[in-house]
Amino acid sequence: MEIGRRKFLTSSVAAAAGSMLMIETNAMEKTKFKKGKGLEFSFFPYELKLRHTFTVAGNSRTTTPVVLTQMKFDGKTGYGEASMPPYLGESHESVLKFLNGLNLSQFNDPFRMDEILDYVDKAAPGNTAAKACVDIALHDLCGKLTGYPWYRMWGLTPEKAPDTSFTIGIDSAEVVRQKTKEAVGFKILKVKLGRENDKEMIETIRSVTDVPICADVNQGWKDKTFALDMIHWLKEKGVVFIEQPMPRENIDMNAWLTERSPIPVMADEAIQRLVDVKKIAGAYSGINVKLMKCTGLHEGYKMVVLAKSLGMKVMIGCMTETSCAVTAAAQLSPLADWADLDGNLLISNDPFEGIKIVDGQVTIPDRPGIGVIKLKS
Amino acid sequence: MEIGRRKFLTSSVAAAAGSMLMIETNAMEKTKFKKGKGLEFSFFPYELKLRHTFTVAGNSRTTTPVVLTQMKFDGKTGYGEASMPPYLGESHESVLKFLNGLNLSQFNDPFRMDEILDYVDKAAPGNTAAKACVDIALHDLCGKLTGYPWYRMWGLTPEKAPDTSFTIGIDSAEVVRQKTKEAVGFKILKVKLGRENDKEMIETIRSVTDVPICADVNQGWKDKTFALDMIHWLKEKGVVFIEQPMPRENIDMNAWLTERSPIPVMADEAIQRLVDVKKIAGAYSGINVKLMKCTGLHEGYKMVVLAKSLGMKVMIGCMTETSCAVTAAAQLSPLADWADLDGNLLISNDPFEGIKIVDGQVTIPDRPGIGVIKLKS
Repeated sequence: MEIGRRKFLTSSVAAAAGSMLMIETNAMEKTKFKKGKGLEFSFFPYELKLRHTFTVAGNSRTTTPVVLTQMKFDGKTGYGEASMPPYLGESHESVLKFLNGLNLSQFNDPFRMDEILDYVDKAAPGNTAAKACVDIALHDLCGKLTGYPWYRMWGLTPEKAPDTSFTIGIDSAEVVRQKTKEAVGFKILKVKLGRENDKEMIETIRSVTDVPICADVNQGWKDKTFALDMIHWLKEKGVVFIEQPMPRENIDMNAWLTERSPIPVMADEAIQRLVDVKKIAGAYSGINVKLMKCTGLHEGYKMVVLAKSLGMKVMIGCMTETSCAVTAAAQLSPLADWADLDGNLLISNDPFEGIKIVDGQVTIPDRPGIGVIKLKS
Repeated sequence: MEIGRRKFLTSSVAAAAGSMLMIETNAMEKTKFKKGKGLEFSFFPYELKLRHTFTVAGNSRTTTPVVLTQMKFDGKTGYGEASMPPYLGESHESVLKFLNGLNLSQFNDPFRMDEILDYVDKAAPGNTAAKACVDIALHDLCGKLTGYPWYRMWGLTPEKAPDTSFTIGIDSAEVVRQKTKEAVGFKILKVKLGRENDKEMIETIRSVTDVPICADVNQGWKDKTFALDMIHWLKEKGVVFIEQPMPRENIDMNAWLTERSPIPVMADEAIQRLVDVKKIAGAYSGINVKLMKCTGLHEGYKMVVLAKSLGMKVMIGCMTETSCAVTAAAQLSPLADWADLDGNLLISNDPFEGIKIVDGQVTIPDRPGIGVIKLKS
């Protein structure tokens, strides 16, 4: 009886305390996150088959090496990708070496991106594609854990995603005409210039279509007066902006050109990571953000915010890569002025389904994380 | 029989198509978000009672008007707040007028923050606290819908949240000594300077404690040489940074001082919103980000990203406000060099529970959204 009474008293004290705290029941919810064992990270090399031989100023190729990654935690799997076009210096060998050197199982909270990606970044200099395949898988995983795609968590309006350009490589007039015809439905074409036949390329495309063009020179022009004359000629031909017309090393020369150009001059080879943005802020009208160069979405988002805040234009680009990395990049696209997200369309063995181009516009899937589905092999 | 057979054929075609698509079952998940009816937004005025009469260069007061808000959607409720210290020009009247002019029920997706907050921002110029009480409720709501707090969605490490300063207002030596003694446990004190008795204030505090001090002058010094001499003297007294020493209008004079100052010179009155950051980038060492001035977390996060990218220091500040707005601001604090998040400690009628200061450090609650619990009134 004595014990019973004490029990009753204890209960009523607890009840009174509960009512004194007066906390709403539904407000007591905790985050759904539970710390468990560490991140499970796996990766394997893959070779993309290109639909057409791809030529940019300097080289041609028929395949692109990539590394596909998976990050598992709490029953969810995030997918990632590193794409290594050879002219950027990374390879299957370098990426696998970099990833083998990481110990991601030490982390038992995937949301600590600052901490995890700082560890990854400091593991070795360079290796930006290798770093991106960790970042992308981590974003896909965290998005799946919350149940939301990243464009939603960033507060973006998917209908604001821009039209994407479709790239026409340097080739014979016949092939260029054929590729241009295949690009029906695209509202903007990207043309690779920087060779002797630049004007011929443009005239060939104009013999087939009058859609707007962006011209990517890949540093191909060496003389600033020639470059400015070309830009004026290109503007008359319906070119709406120009990418990396001159060598990245000469910032002053690019600044001279940007100041005089009647259309925006975008930095590509001149921009890689967040720290580069303010260095080139006066010398270009804007930047091309590519996940494989900037180490992924975490840094890429900051680059976009920084560039927009500095009044610069932004385009979201990609390499030849699967729908995995392209769809990850597409999450950022509602913030961009232009998108160049055709990398997955250039390959014939895409193991993912993701971004769709509808009437030339980037359409981001309404699925959690980066929004891709892995097709069974 | 005929119909039965046709049915069977249809099923097997569907099955074959399913296997040809070869899509992983668990990858078919959609986002949890369902579009429903519009956002339900409500708000009511509230008056904060200050524990001590509060004096900054120019005025004293014993209460602060705030407006508390709620945003409901899909069974979840987000909380927000506008705080209107009188010297910033907003009031119960102006905030209620602004909020009454909004039609937020037209939005049926709270994650479209860019769109919603752009609509709110364009409703009228100024009104930054009124805008912030929409932004904060929206963030709380979206965080609760995902089940995660914002510091997690931003990828931040909560242990990196800095120590917060506790503010000692301008007062008699006796009161200053008393307040300083009450501030035991804080690892940094914020002292309001900018009057005749600046040195006496510092000496009085130093008679009680030797913890680091940040000095907030609220534009109180008018002569740059005097300001520089004072800063040198203050540094000797253990002042680690100085806030808004001189009038914000004279950017060149502030730049002169920042260049020569042995400790960081932070902008407060000189900085309000994202567009201001690049304007003052060379003239101050860093910025004080306050939600009530920058319209909330959406823009505040961008300001922090921009400032850090430009190599500037960042502090997260607050007004006299409830745990609602202070805890919202605390979500950003792991990105900051310093925090001044003591606003809720200065009041005696806080209707929320949120941020805790443990051993002087900001401790962000592990709850979804902005992390607050509303106490029943």
